[in-house]
Amino acid sequence: MISETLRHPLSLFDMKGRVAIVTGASGAFGRGCAIALAALGVKQLLVSGSAGELEDVVAEVREVGGEVLSMVRRPDSLADAEAMVRVAVDGFGHVDRLVVASGYNKAGFIQDLSYDDWQKVMDANVRAPWFMAKAVGSYFIEQKIRGKVLLMSSVRGRHGNYSGYTGYCTSKGATDGLTRVLATEWAKYGITVNAIAPTVFRSKLTAWMYGDDEVGRATKARSLSRIPLGRLGEVEDLIGMAVYLLAPASDFCTGQVMYVDGGYTAG
Amino acid sequence: MISETLRHPLSLFDMKGRVAIVTGASGAFGRGCAIALAALGVKQLLVSGSAGELEDVVAEVREVGGEVLSMVRRPDSLADAEAMVRVAVDGFGHVDRLVVASGYNKAGFIQDLSYDDWQKVMDANVRAPWFMAKAVGSYFIEQKIRGKVLLMSSVRGRHGNYSGYTGYCTSKGATDGLTRVLATEWAKYGITVNAIAPTVFRSKLTAWMYGDDEVGRATKARSLSRIPLGRLGEVEDLIGMAVYLLAPASDFCTGQVMYVDGGYTAG
Amino acid sequence: MISETLRHPLSLFDMKGRVAIVTGASGAFGRGCAIALAALGVKQLLVSGSAGELEDVVAEVREVGGEVLSMVRRPDSLADAEAMVRVAVDGFGHVDRLVVASGYNKAGFIQDLSYDDWQKVMDANVRAPWFMAKAVGSYFIEQKIRGKVLLMSSVRGRHGNYSGYTGYCTSKGATDGLTRVLATEWAKYGITVNAIAPTVFRSKLTAWMYGDDEVGRATKARSLSRIPLGRLGEVEDLIGMAVYLLAPASDFCTGQVMYVDGGYTAG
Amino acid sequence: MISETLRHPLSLFDMKGRVAIVTGASGAFGRGCAIALAALGVKQLLVSGSAGELEDVVAEVREVGGEVLSMVRRPDSLADAEAMVRVAVDGFGHVDRLVVASGYNKAGFIQDLSYDDWQKVMDANVRAPWFMAKAVGSYFIEQKIRGKVLLMSSVRGRHGNYSGYTGYCTSKGATDGLTRVLATEWAKYGITVNAIAPTVFRSKLTAWMYGDDEVGRATKARSLSRIPLGRLGEVEDLIGMAVYLLAPASDFCTGQVMYVDGGYTAG
Repeated sequence: MISETLRHPLSLFDMKGRVAIVTGASGAFGRGCAIALAALGVKQLLVSGSAGELEDVVAEVREVGGEVLSMVRRPDSLADAEAMVRVAVDGFGHVDRLVVASGYNKAGFIQDLSYDDWQKVMDANVRAPWFMAKAVGSYFIEQKIRGKVLLMSSVRGRHGNYSGYTGYCTSKGATDGLTRVLATEWAKYGITVNAIAPTVFRSKLTAWMYGDDEVGRATKARSLSRIPLGRLGEVEDLIGMAVYLLAPASDFCTGQVMYVDGGYTAG
Repeated sequence: MISETLRHPLSLFDMKGRVAIVTGASGAFGRGCAIALAALGVKQLLVSGSAGELEDVVAEVREVGGEVLSMVRRPDSLADAEAMVRVAVDGFGHVDRLVVASGYNKAGFIQDLSYDDWQKVMDANVRAPWFMAKAVGSYFIEQKIRGKVLLMSSVRGRHGNYSGYTGYCTSKGATDGLTRVLATEWAKYGITVNAIAPTVFRSKLTAWMYGDDEVGRATKARSLSRIPLGRLGEVEDLIGMAVYLLAPASDFCTGQVMYVDGGYTAG
Repeated sequence: MISETLRHPLSLFDMKGRVAIVTGASGAFGRGCAIALAALGVKQLLVSGSAGELEDVVAEVREVGGEVLSMVRRPDSLADAEAMVRVAVDGFGHVDRLVVASGYNKAGFIQDLSYDDWQKVMDANVRAPWFMAKAVGSYFIEQKIRGKVLLMSSVRGRHGNYSGYTGYCTSKGATDGLTRVLATEWAKYGITVNAIAPTVFRSKLTAWMYGDDEVGRATKARSLSRIPLGRLGEVEDLIGMAVYLLAPASDFCTGQVMYVDGGYTAG
Repeated sequence: MISETLRHPLSLFDMKGRVAIVTGASGAFGRGCAIALAALGVKQLLVSGSAGELEDVVAEVREVGGEVLSMVRRPDSLADAEAMVRVAVDGFGHVDRLVVASGYNKAGFIQDLSYDDWQKVMDANVRAPWFMAKAVGSYFIEQKIRGKVLLMSSVRGRHGNYSGYTGYCTSKGATDGLTRVLATEWAKYGITVNAIAPTVFRSKLTAWMYGDDEVGRATKARSLSRIPLGRLGEVEDLIGMAVYLLAPASDFCTGQVMYVDGGYTAG
């Protein structure tokens, strides 16, 4: 007998009626996720610290028919994270997806980097997902919701960098560890936790690499020399995996860091 | 501006009109892929060494509306693999997907395992994908087709096994290496090569673990003790990732071994 | 011609006259390292927050003939780390080895763990090595010393844990990332940075697993079920690798997390 | 109380009176191991297919005082491997170490590589260690010898290569899998199995990269661009790790692939 899943494989990507919280929604990946999820019928609370940019993304999400709330906030405390859960539940009745797309980088060799700058990277990239996971996961468990969590890692979680990245690389290694331990702790509740790991992709943070100045071109060239597929990434490259990790398709997949990196980690 | 991809994310999984060769089509994973791909509008040459079972799968694929050819053959030589390409091209005009779902295992501690039995595992799990990759990849390159290849790995490529698996574990480590090197070599042609890595899932080969006999139950219990999500796999668990790896969604993803394993490798 | 190295391979482990800073020197691994390094002729500044225990270790190190200074301090700030460098340089003329053996764990499912407890784990296991690396590495670079750094990771950097370890697993993932990025940044100065990753080994922190109470025995049994070599670790199991990573033997080895885990990660 | 190990850490590298079989003894790594092991008091059966070169190595090993037998043979069958065990046991009374330093590479893109050339790489790099492991491991188990096995992997087991390496990369992925499964199967006998994984190091096979011709210089430059420590390897770089993996130091370390690669895999 042929199962319904085999007969209708796109049903594996069906997320109509799901409710997601997306942090960092005004960043390139957050925005891309938000629009794609909206197009798939997911209701969303979009969160960002940048009021103006968030407004723009909300408008785009509405343009594709998305039902959406927004909140100007950064996940800088447990209270912030809990407030997001409250707003989403109040607005949509429940939450069953979490995308932590917020993050930060500050380059600088460790000799030159100040402790404050380093800690700021760690707080944005590790503490924030931890707060979000704690607030949202506690809610999932209480409400017996078999939710899904998507964190943002990077090839930098597995590879160092010549350019002074002790904050970023350390924080992404931490993300990978957090992904695995949350997946392990929460598996018994049917909650899945995974991360997506890109290499350089086009965003406000990387715009300088796509331009004409010399350092940008040199950095781009260095990055390209490590990417077998021969180009830097675009947000659109990441969306299929993000959808997979948030949809029923990934119900038996947890604790994984999924590299969508043009072959960087393989080459 | 909102890209078409973000506006229509399911287009990332669109494979209508694609043509795939699937080896091992009468096995559990091969059959599952074949039906799902057919449901997505992929034309297929299904290959298996077991004529009767292949016929059954062909019937099922047709039941979901699949356009399909079949060939009773195992990929035991380059000539076999080239014959498959020929038949598929003759029948459908071109080929742009390859799924190597054929494989074999013979357990036995290395002390007890005969060389012939070991080599048979290696031939089925490493040489066969190599032949298929050589025949299909050469065709892709000649025809300038940006094709996609999906190989079958296992958590056993990364973890040993207490039960006498020097053939299987070695062959799956080899699969992972083959995946990465083919991805690297062929990236310049726009061809992607990835593998899917399950833990134990229900199939003819693992049926004994799902039954009532004592050894089966003990083996199942041991496997379960390593799977955070608390159950063994089903073919349906693998289909979403297989679709991702064969669809445009994965155009920037290559050389990866994707674990869909209930959290085995994370826990 | 036969090189001196091949003719005298034990010279690869020669560290006579080296000067090391060892944090966490009163812990099981720190103490073991301190005694072994002393026996190999390494002068040391031993650091620990526990005055009484540190005194005991200092006595043991002197018993094997070690030249040693001690400092009651935890690496809780850059100033602490810089003070250690100063004391060691003042006392011994220079420093060329750093062992960060300090660390901390606080178990608890993320739902129950307080932020303060989580951050305390992160600070002890990630921030402290970062401070130490910054202070010692800056000194190495300034002084053109081709030094060696040894950090403490764990199998928990690669595997989650059922027992509520979001602090520990996240911090050890971070350690692995820090190891790789420091290695990459500092390779041009000839500085190597590596980590050693044990599974459970006997220490004050794990003593409860070796005793008679039920939870301890159950936890021990669970750990053992994952260790092919069939026993938990002892500090002595780690010393050979620690010596390798601190001696000239490892001059071409950097950025690695070395598992000495009874086969945990392989099985 | 201070254990004897901590008091005398070099005892961890003591191998006086051990008996090793070393295949590929006339290659760069095999020769280096053979001389170093001899210098440490290990008796050896040195094996190679190249009679003249083997004779040279035997002379060098004797020069450093090594007790040595030699055998012109390649591990092309189980009978070959068993013959080696017999000769070593007859000559020295027992065997407790195995170093498989034999290996082979044949470059060529998969499109161009003949099946025979590919299989030859697989046979030399995978089948040969399997034969050796089967013969030597069976002997270890029968004789209740807690022996140690060292296999030769490469960064190519984890990373693909642009230069047409489907044989080499696949075979080294296989080596890694073989290492882990043998370690897991044999842990209960107290046998450890590990691999050492270099990047390019100076040998007859790589001599062309160290010379003056253009392709060699380009290939060397490409390799160097991936090695943070800024130089290619020398056999001497590998000896410390080889000694560690063959000495009591590694008694609790098994199933690991140890990268001594100038930081290649970390950077």
